[in-house]
Amino acid sequence: MIVVMAKDSSAEHIGEVERRIESHPGLKAQVFNGIERVVIGVLGSIPPDLKDEIELLTGVLEVVPISKPYKLASREFHPDSTKVVVGDVVIGGSEPVIMAGPCSVEDEEQMVATARAVKASGAKILRGGAYKPRTSPYSFRGMGIEGLKLLKLAKEETGLPIITEVMAPEDVETVAEYADILQIGARNMQNYTLLDRVGEINKPVMVKRGLAASYEEWLLAAEYVMAGGNDQVILCERGIRSFEQYTRFTLDVAAIPVVQRMSHLPIVADPSHSTGRWYLVTPVALAAIAAGANGLLVEVHPNPDLAKCDGPQSLTFENFDALMQQVRSVAAVRRSPVEVT
Amino acid sequence: MIVVMAKDSSAEHIGEVERRIESHPGLKAQVFNGIERVVIGVLGSIPPDLKDEIELLTGVLEVVPISKPYKLASREFHPDSTKVVVGDVVIGGSEPVIMAGPCSVEDEEQMVATARAVKASGAKILRGGAYKPRTSPYSFRGMGIEGLKLLKLAKEETGLPIITEVMAPEDVETVAEYADILQIGARNMQNYTLLDRVGEINKPVMVKRGLAASYEEWLLAAEYVMAGGNDQVILCERGIRSFEQYTRFTLDVAAIPVVQRMSHLPIVADPSHSTGRWYLVTPVALAAIAAGANGLLVEVHPNPDLAKCDGPQSLTFENFDALMQQVRSVAAVRRSPVEVT
Amino acid sequence: MIVVMAKDSSAEHIGEVERRIESHPGLKAQVFNGIERVVIGVLGSIPPDLKDEIELLTGVLEVVPISKPYKLASREFHPDSTKVVVGDVVIGGSEPVIMAGPCSVEDEEQMVATARAVKASGAKILRGGAYKPRTSPYSFRGMGIEGLKLLKLAKEETGLPIITEVMAPEDVETVAEYADILQIGARNMQNYTLLDRVGEINKPVMVKRGLAASYEEWLLAAEYVMAGGNDQVILCERGIRSFEQYTRFTLDVAAIPVVQRMSHLPIVADPSHSTGRWYLVTPVALAAIAAGANGLLVEVHPNPDLAKCDGPQSLTFENFDALMQQVRSVAAVRRSPVEVT
Amino acid sequence: MIVVMAKDSSAEHIGEVERRIESHPGLKAQVFNGIERVVIGVLGSIPPDLKDEIELLTGVLEVVPISKPYKLASREFHPDSTKVVVGDVVIGGSEPVIMAGPCSVEDEEQMVATARAVKASGAKILRGGAYKPRTSPYSFRGMGIEGLKLLKLAKEETGLPIITEVMAPEDVETVAEYADILQIGARNMQNYTLLDRVGEINKPVMVKRGLAASYEEWLLAAEYVMAGGNDQVILCERGIRSFEQYTRFTLDVAAIPVVQRMSHLPIVADPSHSTGRWYLVTPVALAAIAAGANGLLVEVHPNPDLAKCDGPQSLTFENFDALMQQVRSVAAVRRSPVEVT
Repeated sequence: MIVVMAKDSSAEHIGEVERRIESHPGLKAQVFNGIERVVIGVLGSIPPDLKDEIELLTGVLEVVPISKPYKLASREFHPDSTKVVVGDVVIGGSEPVIMAGPCSVEDEEQMVATARAVKASGAKILRGGAYKPRTSPYSFRGMGIEGLKLLKLAKEETGLPIITEVMAPEDVETVAEYADILQIGARNMQNYTLLDRVGEINKPVMVKRGLAASYEEWLLAAEYVMAGGNDQVILCERGIRSFEQYTRFTLDVAAIPVVQRMSHLPIVADPSHSTGRWYLVTPVALAAIAAGANGLLVEVHPNPDLAKCDGPQSLTFENFDALMQQVRSVAAVRRSPVEVT
Repeated sequence: MIVVMAKDSSAEHIGEVERRIESHPGLKAQVFNGIERVVIGVLGSIPPDLKDEIELLTGVLEVVPISKPYKLASREFHPDSTKVVVGDVVIGGSEPVIMAGPCSVEDEEQMVATARAVKASGAKILRGGAYKPRTSPYSFRGMGIEGLKLLKLAKEETGLPIITEVMAPEDVETVAEYADILQIGARNMQNYTLLDRVGEINKPVMVKRGLAASYEEWLLAAEYVMAGGNDQVILCERGIRSFEQYTRFTLDVAAIPVVQRMSHLPIVADPSHSTGRWYLVTPVALAAIAAGANGLLVEVHPNPDLAKCDGPQSLTFENFDALMQQVRSVAAVRRSPVEVT
Repeated sequence: MIVVMAKDSSAEHIGEVERRIESHPGLKAQVFNGIERVVIGVLGSIPPDLKDEIELLTGVLEVVPISKPYKLASREFHPDSTKVVVGDVVIGGSEPVIMAGPCSVEDEEQMVATARAVKASGAKILRGGAYKPRTSPYSFRGMGIEGLKLLKLAKEETGLPIITEVMAPEDVETVAEYADILQIGARNMQNYTLLDRVGEINKPVMVKRGLAASYEEWLLAAEYVMAGGNDQVILCERGIRSFEQYTRFTLDVAAIPVVQRMSHLPIVADPSHSTGRWYLVTPVALAAIAAGANGLLVEVHPNPDLAKCDGPQSLTFENFDALMQQVRSVAAVRRSPVEVT
Repeated sequence: MIVVMAKDSSAEHIGEVERRIESHPGLKAQVFNGIERVVIGVLGSIPPDLKDEIELLTGVLEVVPISKPYKLASREFHPDSTKVVVGDVVIGGSEPVIMAGPCSVEDEEQMVATARAVKASGAKILRGGAYKPRTSPYSFRGMGIEGLKLLKLAKEETGLPIITEVMAPEDVETVAEYADILQIGARNMQNYTLLDRVGEINKPVMVKRGLAASYEEWLLAAEYVMAGGNDQVILCERGIRSFEQYTRFTLDVAAIPVVQRMSHLPIVADPSHSTGRWYLVTPVALAAIAAGANGLLVEVHPNPDLAKCDGPQSLTFENFDALMQQVRSVAAVRRSPVEVT
């Protein structure tokens, strides 16, 4: 941590900053006299609230953190990429893993038909919402436990592991009974009670990026889960909120290589929620794969125009199959060695 | 709801849209032939997911909602301003109500001293956090129930009603035993399980605006609480996330008159969290009052530079007292009739 | 255009809106009685300021434009994709066109060496800045006309056509003498004097998206150029400003398929400026190609760490060559027909 | 400037960074060994592009600038507040200065009537657009020089000095003949050719904040003007672009006290353009004054619903007069000393 003093700060102000830093056991202050101003470096393991404490001492212009506030999620501390394993599916390996299925579970026929179709096209994991976060209290909010049972049925029919969202801390245990991967939705990325709870279970957790979350805040959400003892965390870029509102959200495709540099956790992308329009799903999905995503989360529905939720962004079976062919080809380009001439 | 057809949509496409609209009981479609294109109006009480359903029919260019998705929170449906009453304090009346206290409850001395000081300066409600949402899992996360007990003690000493945050659905009942107003934090504005739960209690609820929430989404969060049966809802503008990051968030001061036009619910502002710096709190607080805010939520601490949380944005007792004098004067300007020459 | 009346608007208010609409020659108002409210449709060719005029009549709740304000740039009015031809290079055809070169022109050796290297790797157009927009007045602002001469020299040596930025209306003529494509920078996207001026020349113009420009505003900037008589316009997505500031800007990859749907103009992407970091350029460039971009604008420098401008985001010759190999492979995937099973 | 090295950087990497820093005449590197990593401080007067140069050396994790890139506009270097004097009007003194008038100049009667009305209500400066930046090429773009002449006429009638926008470098001289203050619009805040040109004249210049400009970029735009030799610069907060689009822009009220701390230049606010709706102008204007703004820029029109431009955000004479009464009262609160109890 670096403390930048104002140009006109006095020797007393500087002394007080030093004193306050060194009042924390194990910390040392080192003063650095520049031409325009004095800068004080802090040596030692920085407590998370030290920045706040020092920032309001008289004469302090700015406090610049140097160490990142996340450790468990950081690649600097864990150079090897994490692989999250679900049955024989490896997320974070050499192949992107496609997770597909309807926005919300509606009935047995829909689930089983969709599971079979996405499996036939190459999806490795089945998605489907039983508990649905909805902006309006009057929208369809999911089938709940009945939905979980239909997901299980579809899994039995096809062998596809299941990913589904959990919204309430008290549902974590139940959802974990049925699901192979628990999903934390974007709106709950900073629902710390929920993050603490999924940190205690022994199942992989996918943390979607919040609508307004910086990379650092997103990795800190993963850190919450990992600090609870669960290190099987997958990140999911699903679009941020920007001023552009033709698309539902703005997929930040650079997040993929950035997060792969900052963190060892696998990262997938959700082209369906980010765009909100089915005809944008394929180009954006291919973009994510080309950028190096470890997987995709894609909404597929037998009859998008009859879907109870998010129909406009769901692919038909045919469109999904076409997407999968292109995904495989783009992934092959990413894998093939480049010959430097 | 208005359905805009693409220029080249056929009579069949138009017919299918009509048919789909009228397949919902009580809805009627009315076709409107423009010069460049056809537009179809929908008459009747629109189900929340109809937009999604119609949007992906062939030939549809755009679906424009006309009715707002919130009803209970809407001023159009409830023209009279709501007054939320807590003991003898009226939020939404002619006087702005100031709620003040420390970011987090730390000990008895701090709480009682702060309660006395803010009361002496004119605050009507005591704030203090017992459950603290923190970006990092390693930061101080509040005293929990012990904090609630200290808040109660400070209330007994001063008579000030209490506002405090509730983060987890399972804590709602406990927090409601101690608090006079329950606060939903910005990060939980779309934690629907929590909103449902506070909708079932009989205590006022303050809903802070999410970091990336539009006015409509914010009012829909209030609608969740009201749809549960609790109509004592207060809104709180606490800054949105923008590209400008010198301040922690960007206080959207226009939100105050906008929300007062869209909704009948009282709205207060939080100048402490939005700015993140104590020297910005007073000008921004006065701005909010001048814009017509029904109250303020202000962080005050006996020794900001020793606070366990958010010290940099807390006012000293002296600064708070000075603020209160100015608040009263600005509020008087807002109240006094203007003589049109 | 649709005028939505407030629930409590009177017959007189509605009559006044009708009267005002029909006071414009050629416009007709058509009233549409809904259950909750009245909506008035406007038939005819809408003048651009009509929305403003109607919006403040008493009883009007909202005015919803239906027609888009751009015509010349719109695909609805010009279904065929535009191909911009520069010598034997076609931008908007089946192959993505790569434009590469240094951020700023520095000297003959740098320009000629870079031109040769990027040509050898497959670039079809040479980029290089002679007039540089810089945030600080104290940064290197380009070589001006001497830079244009060096670009011309590099063109003579390699045969590569040139794209370069023009910043001032009075430089348009001079820049057009040397350049094959004139570039309008993001900061000048709404510099209307400049847009008017490049609308009068007979050379292709690339319009970069403004940092805070919506798709519609961007297409209106293209419309300015086209309204001046120049229909050889290329669009360039170069990242928008969002709250995320680890990258310089946020490349909005969905802009590519969206703009291709809204407009007939070719669209390219700039992975260098959007990310600001060389190690992000390749993944983001491939993402743009996978999403269907008609080309790329890439910064390449013989010695990025000695560049006078934007070194951190420039690729070396080796990295650029590796990128080109992958670009070709991803572009091939986009082109190859998908067999629907 | 502080250079943060990666955890695993070698002694050679560190040595190379030192060498590169010290290759610049007058700079010195000072290495600082932390527990987790090495940090290198740079002493001396930092060239503007050094950050870019160092950032891509091997082993460098991050480069943190400490000095601000603006000097002439900085309060640290110029502690006394600047007063811009126009005739007997002082902008930046103890009284807020209200500048009012129509969005665009339309005819003599409109200009003279408006000038008289706003003067009677207490405005000190007359605003009016002769050159209008418009998003669509088909909107009314102002009367040009004829508009300047009408402004001059209104000045002769009332004695009010004039502020008006200049859009093109080649118009600067002409506009400066007629205007007392030249306005640089938000869309031109980074039109560096224009900034350079107004830096050469001897008239005050108002620099509006760009839609997506950070405080630092805005102050650098002022720095451009000042670096040209013109130190009579006024800043204007007119709303930034955020995800919230009910209002045209989001007025960042905290910008007022922040800029007053960072810079010695006066700052005014534009409640008309930021909100885009007349009924929001008064509350937002009062908020800006309460926050300490040195003035306001307000759109006033004799008949807003017949205005050729921005009618929906213009005040009538009556509403403006009522606003002025409240402005005076709020300004008096800001000025009156607060008695600390």
